[in-house]
Amino acid sequence: MMQGYFLHQRNPHVVFDLFFRRAPFGGGFSVFAGLETALRFVQDIRFTEEDIAYLRGLGTFRPEFLHYLEGMRFRGDIWAMEEGTLAFPGEPLLRVHATLIEAQLLESALLAIVNFQTLIATKAARVRLAANGRSVIEFGLRRAQGIDGALSASRAAFIGGVSATSNTLAGKRFSIPVRGTMAHSWVMVFENEREAFERYADAYPDNALLLIDTYDTLGSGLQNAVAVGRRLKAAGHRGFGVRLDSGDLEYLSKRVRARLDAEGLADALIVASNDLDEAIIHQLITRGAPIDVWGVGTNLVTGAGDPALTGVYKLAARERERDGIFEPTIKVSNNPEKVTNPGVKQVWRFVTPEGSPLADLICLEDETLETGRPYTFHHPHGDYRSFTLREYGRMTALLKRWMTAGEIVGELPSLPDLQARTLRHLQALDETYKRLINPHDYKVSLSSRLSELKAGLIRQHLTQGEGS
Amino acid sequence: MMQGYFLHQRNPHVVFDLFFRRAPFGGGFSVFAGLETALRFVQDIRFTEEDIAYLRGLGTFRPEFLHYLEGMRFRGDIWAMEEGTLAFPGEPLLRVHATLIEAQLLESALLAIVNFQTLIATKAARVRLAANGRSVIEFGLRRAQGIDGALSASRAAFIGGVSATSNTLAGKRFSIPVRGTMAHSWVMVFENEREAFERYADAYPDNALLLIDTYDTLGSGLQNAVAVGRRLKAAGHRGFGVRLDSGDLEYLSKRVRARLDAEGLADALIVASNDLDEAIIHQLITRGAPIDVWGVGTNLVTGAGDPALTGVYKLAARERERDGIFEPTIKVSNNPEKVTNPGVKQVWRFVTPEGSPLADLICLEDETLETGRPYTFHHPHGDYRSFTLREYGRMTALLKRWMTAGEIVGELPSLPDLQARTLRHLQALDETYKRLINPHDYKVSLSSRLSELKAGLIRQHLTQGEGS
Repeated sequence: MMQGYFLHQRNPHVVFDLFFRRAPFGGGFSVFAGLETALRFVQDIRFTEEDIAYLRGLGTFRPEFLHYLEGMRFRGDIWAMEEGTLAFPGEPLLRVHATLIEAQLLESALLAIVNFQTLIATKAARVRLAANGRSVIEFGLRRAQGIDGALSASRAAFIGGVSATSNTLAGKRFSIPVRGTMAHSWVMVFENEREAFERYADAYPDNALLLIDTYDTLGSGLQNAVAVGRRLKAAGHRGFGVRLDSGDLEYLSKRVRARLDAEGLADALIVASNDLDEAIIHQLITRGAPIDVWGVGTNLVTGAGDPALTGVYKLAARERERDGIFEPTIKVSNNPEKVTNPGVKQVWRFVTPEGSPLADLICLEDETLETGRPYTFHHPHGDYRSFTLREYGRMTALLKRWMTAGEIVGELPSLPDLQARTLRHLQALDETYKRLINPHDYKVSLSSRLSELKAGLIRQHLTQGEGS
Repeated sequence: MMQGYFLHQRNPHVVFDLFFRRAPFGGGFSVFAGLETALRFVQDIRFTEEDIAYLRGLGTFRPEFLHYLEGMRFRGDIWAMEEGTLAFPGEPLLRVHATLIEAQLLESALLAIVNFQTLIATKAARVRLAANGRSVIEFGLRRAQGIDGALSASRAAFIGGVSATSNTLAGKRFSIPVRGTMAHSWVMVFENEREAFERYADAYPDNALLLIDTYDTLGSGLQNAVAVGRRLKAAGHRGFGVRLDSGDLEYLSKRVRARLDAEGLADALIVASNDLDEAIIHQLITRGAPIDVWGVGTNLVTGAGDPALTGVYKLAARERERDGIFEPTIKVSNNPEKVTNPGVKQVWRFVTPEGSPLADLICLEDETLETGRPYTFHHPHGDYRSFTLREYGRMTALLKRWMTAGEIVGELPSLPDLQARTLRHLQALDETYKRLINPHDYKVSLSSRLSELKAGLIRQHLTQGEGS
C-alpha cells in the first residue's frame, strides 16, 4: 500500500484513530497500555541497508520507492490517552497525524503493541480486583507467547496492578519488582524434602517461600515446612511462607493456615498458584480461602478467555486532493456498529464532584467545553437515543499530544506512576462497572456536532452510492 | 534457585525433560516447533556487565555468585525431536543434559519458546487441514501478543503449513514468502472506489487482490472489481482476485464466484478473511464455499481456544552426590497423570510398512530395539493395561542430539524443509487422528523396562515417605 501511494503520488496528510469495539473478557472497562513502547518504536523506525536489500530481493518494489524508504522517518504527531487510563469501546485511544504513507507504516506495529498491552493490563486489573487487596505476582514467562510476549506482558501486567514479576529480564528492563520461589526440581535434587527446605532457608532466610506439594502437601510438605519456619522465626527471620501449586486450594489453604497458626507461625504467608484466573481467585476469596499472595501465570500473560483485543486503526480525516481542505472520512457498513466516527476527535470524560466517571463524550477536536453547562450525549450508532447531562463535577480531555514531528515530547511517566494511575482510576469507578461478569454498560456518546456530521456523511454515501 | 545451588555447591549433572500433558485445541496431534530459536538462544546466553549490575542492585545475590555468572555459558547437551515432527502427550520433545545450575537457567526460556511455537505450528496445521488443500496466508501481526509474538508466530505458522505471511519482517528474518492485499483505508483515501481499484491495479497488475466490502460488496464493490479485472485480463495480466472481509462468506463467495465466471473471470481468485479459524473454514469448505485463499490472523497467531501449550520441564535423572552414580528421579503426585517418567529416555515411533504412525514407545536411552521383534506397550499411568505390537513396518528414534557442550552441531534444517516434513508426517497420519474435534487417541506407552522402573520408584516413595 505504501508503494502504491508513493507511485501515485497520493500522500495527503491524514488522521488515523486507534480504537476497539468491545471490552475484553466480557468486562466493563479496559486499561490503556503500551503507549511508551509504541512511541519508542515509532521514534526509532528506520529502514536499514539490509532491510532495503531484502525488499529489493522480493521483486515487488521499484527502485525509486526503495530509495524513498532509505531516508524515511516518521515525522508526524501522535495524540493518545495516558497509559493506565480506563478506556471504553468506540473512543479513540490514540490518534496519528501524518502523511498517508507514514501513517500507513505504523498501522500493524501500533496495533500489535497497543492491542496486546491493553489486553494484559486489563486482565491484570481484573485479577487484582478479584484478589481484593491481596498481592498478585505475575508468573507468566514459561507460557507466554514468545520471549517478547512475556516481556511486554510483564510491563502491562504491572501497569494493570500486579505487585511483582518472576521474569528477571522484565524486572531489569522496566524496573518492576521481581519475586520468585522454588520449583519442584529444587525439592527433587536434594536427598529429601527436609534437606531441600533447610538449604533454601539457608540461602534466603528472609524470603523462604517453600513449595510443599512435591510429595504430600498436608503430610511431609507441611511438616517439613513448619520445622524450618519455626527455626527461622526463632532466629528472628521474617518473610517465611509456603506455596501451594496443586490440589484443592480452598481446602488445603484452610488446613495449612490452621496448622501454621497452631505452630506459632501466624505471620507465615500462604502463596497459591496453579492455573489461576480472576474467576477462580474471586471464588476462593469469597469462600474465605486464607491465601495471602496469588501467583498468576498463563491466564494472565496470554489474556486467557480473549486472546486479542479487537483494536483497529481507521482513517478519520484526510486532506482533500483538489483543494487541500482537511475533510472527515467515514467507513460505512451494513452493520451500524462498524460505521466509523468521522473527523479529528477528542474524548471528554465527565465525572462526579468526587471524581467518579459518569460518561464519556466524543467531540470534534475544535469543540470547546465549559464546566457547568449541560451537554447532550448522542448514541454512537446514530439512532434517536440521547440524554442530557446537567449534574456533574467536571470534564477532562483524555487525548494529549505525546509526539510532535516524530519526536517524543516531554517526560514519559514512570511505570509505578502508571500503576498508581490505574489503581486511582479503578478506585474511582463505580462498582457496577467493575463486576467481573455482566457489568453495567459505561456510556460513550457523541457530541451533537459529531453526531450530526456522522449522520450527514452516512446520508451522503447512501445517496451517491460508491459505484459512480 | 541457581544461587541456592551455587551456595550449597549442589551442582550435579542432571537430565531434564520438556514435555506436555495434553494436545491443544482438543486435537489429536501437535507439531513440534521452536527448536532452532531455542538452540540459538541457548548458544548465545551471556550475562553482560549491565545484567550483573542490575542483579547486584536487587540486593538478593552474593558477590561470589555474581562473579560466577560473569563467565557462565551453557555447556551442556540438548537432544530433541526435529521441528515439524508430530508430537503427543507425555513424550519428551527435548532433553537437556547439563549441570543443575545450567539446566535450571534454561527452564523458562525453553518453555516460553517451545510452548508457543508448538502451539502455533499445531494451530496452523489444523487450519491447513481444514482448508483441504487450498492456500492459507497468515495475517496475524496486528493482533499478535507482542512484536516478537508476531514474529515467532509467523515462523511457527509456516512450519505448520501456511503458504505465506503478511508480516514483512518475519518474511525477511525467516525467508518466508510474503503476501499482502489492500486495507479499507486504501479505498477510503481515493475519491471513489473505482479509482482506488484502478490505482491499485496500476501498481500491482499481476497481483491485484481488491477488497470489495468497503461500501457495498455485491453492489459497487463487485462491479468496480469486475471492470478492473476485465481490463487487466484484456491486457494479459494474471493473479487478479477479490477479497471478502465481512458478511456471510458462504453466501457472498457463491454470488461473487457466479458473477466473476459470468464476466469471463473464471480464473479470478476469491480470498476470504475476518476472524477465521479451523472450525469456520471447515464448515465453509464443507458447504462448498468457492474460496481459494484463506487469510487467517488473530485466531492463528494467538492459538485462540487454547492460549498456551501446557509444556513443563521436569527433572528426569541426577548424578547422586554420595557416589556419582546417575540415577532416575520421579515426581510423584496423588494424580497419576502428574507422575513423571523417570530416567534418560528415547522415544520410538512404530509405523506401518507404508510409514503411517501406529504408536510411540518411550524407552530408556540404553534399550536397543530391533525391527521385527514384538514389543509390549505399557500404559503410562502404570496400571495393568498393555498390548503387544507384532505387526509393524519399522521403528524410528525421534530424539537426536542438536547441541554438544553448548554448541549447535551440524546443519539446522531450512524452514521450507521443516514445513515439508510437517506435511509429509500429517499426510502419513491416519485420518482418525486428524479429526478436528474428538479425534482418536494416539497411543504413547512405556517400554517394559521403563514401566518397571517407574513402578519401583513409586513404591519406594510410598514406602519411605518423604518426611524422613
